[in-house]
Amino acid sequence: MELWYTEKQTNNLGMTCLVQETLCNFKTEFQQLAVLETAQFGKMLVLDGTVQTTERDEFVYHEMIAHIAMQAHPNPKKVLVVGGGDGGTIREVLKYAAVESATLVEIDEAVIEASKKFLPKISCALSDPRVNVLVADGIGHVKLSPGKYDVILVDSTDPVGPAIGLFAEEFYADIFKALKKDGMLVAQTESPFFNCELIENVYARIGRIFPLTKLYLASIPTYPSGLWSFTVGSKCYEPENCRQEPVNTKYYNFAVHRGAFCLPNFVKELVGEKGK
Amino acid sequence: MELWYTEKQTNNLGMTCLVQETLCNFKTEFQQLAVLETAQFGKMLVLDGTVQTTERDEFVYHEMIAHIAMQAHPNPKKVLVVGGGDGGTIREVLKYAAVESATLVEIDEAVIEASKKFLPKISCALSDPRVNVLVADGIGHVKLSPGKYDVILVDSTDPVGPAIGLFAEEFYADIFKALKKDGMLVAQTESPFFNCELIENVYARIGRIFPLTKLYLASIPTYPSGLWSFTVGSKCYEPENCRQEPVNTKYYNFAVHRGAFCLPNFVKELVGEKGK
Repeated sequence: MELWYTEKQTNNLGMTCLVQETLCNFKTEFQQLAVLETAQFGKMLVLDGTVQTTERDEFVYHEMIAHIAMQAHPNPKKVLVVGGGDGGTIREVLKYAAVESATLVEIDEAVIEASKKFLPKISCALSDPRVNVLVADGIGHVKLSPGKYDVILVDSTDPVGPAIGLFAEEFYADIFKALKKDGMLVAQTESPFFNCELIENVYARIGRIFPLTKLYLASIPTYPSGLWSFTVGSKCYEPENCRQEPVNTKYYNFAVHRGAFCLPNFVKELVGEKGK
Repeated sequence: MELWYTEKQTNNLGMTCLVQETLCNFKTEFQQLAVLETAQFGKMLVLDGTVQTTERDEFVYHEMIAHIAMQAHPNPKKVLVVGGGDGGTIREVLKYAAVESATLVEIDEAVIEASKKFLPKISCALSDPRVNVLVADGIGHVKLSPGKYDVILVDSTDPVGPAIGLFAEEFYADIFKALKKDGMLVAQTESPFFNCELIENVYARIGRIFPLTKLYLASIPTYPSGLWSFTVGSKCYEPENCRQEPVNTKYYNFAVHRGAFCLPNFVKELVGEKGK
């Protein structure tokens, strides 16, 4: 018997993966959580039927949500990751010697526990002494942390269910306050092929709050369309700058940093830049 | 009833699309040819069960196989497209006023006819007076055309069945001879996530024949992994150069041209460049 897991990425499109073993599949307080052993991508974390991360391609997402801001900011001492309970983003953040503390605020403890159990290469950094893991609502944490962080990374699920508030203008305004006067925000903002309206809206929201707003892209095979966007809000530092040699990365390098901001015309149109 | 078309992109991974109508599905002299009306991607051309092009995302592939060489070459008068019976690559080539003649050599006349009938926005340029359509084996044509072309674009299917010879070193050597003394080759060379060995081999083959060899990337949702590679062989011109304003493109622009050569570390390793 062959078992195939199919994610309906849109109403009209699916990705289907051969499953060798279902390692866990249960309802948490917030969502349905499964870890599958797949032939193509190794272990795969699935929340509410949507692939979050896999052993084979997680490096792209985690490097690209973390390194752009960690490079562009000259001294990122205090870093907050909202969501990201698998720990992959924290792992990348900790590659910088400047980091004094990295705080993870994940609403669903079961995600953290499942990642520790089944995805040790992704969650490995969660036990680092510089890491502070909080099981809490990221929105509330950000509201109560004025002027505290150098870099905030919003490593959320899709904008449905528990993550809707993580794409709201009020949340970005609270992040602005939670950042120091030279702080930077990066948020994952879905696919430019399939989520045009979301990208337009988030870009406009962040643009109304931060002096500098930029979109950049990375190629992630297990996410819908394979092309993914991230939106940066910066109080002063130019997000395209890189400062330190990258350490032990499989996707990120200085050329990739610059190239990620080279937007195709149809993506430029989403964020209101003229073609060319 | 819902009809879903599933392409097994690898033995362990599939893409599945909701089909509204099967416009045609028949065996040609060389392969199984279908045109499907899909909800996600519009009309979709499928050869031997593999998506070749769709109305919604064809612009990425056709722009990116054509514009890099057409920009890097200062005067591309005579252009050859091997394969590419849908006409999309020829359409992009004809955006350059320098072009005096664009020759299409497609082995399967049924692909040309189906594209003319069902995909007029892709095949529209095939009736341009500068275009010369040959129904023939590209390998034979290239062998018999010494010193004839400025740019040759190998717009092939995957390296199975009729297209195997289009990835062979002998073919690239014949292309070198078919190019003028300052000519350029671009070949589509599959996914860096799933076709590592092919990319390594083709890069090495082209590198043994051409003085300048480079790999570049583009994001194509309907191709496996969503990330696609192209390999350039150039006799003298630097492939990263751009010379003319791009015309009427949805993906390509000068920044994208430069960004396409910014390779992630795991891709650099495939082509033997040191990380960074």
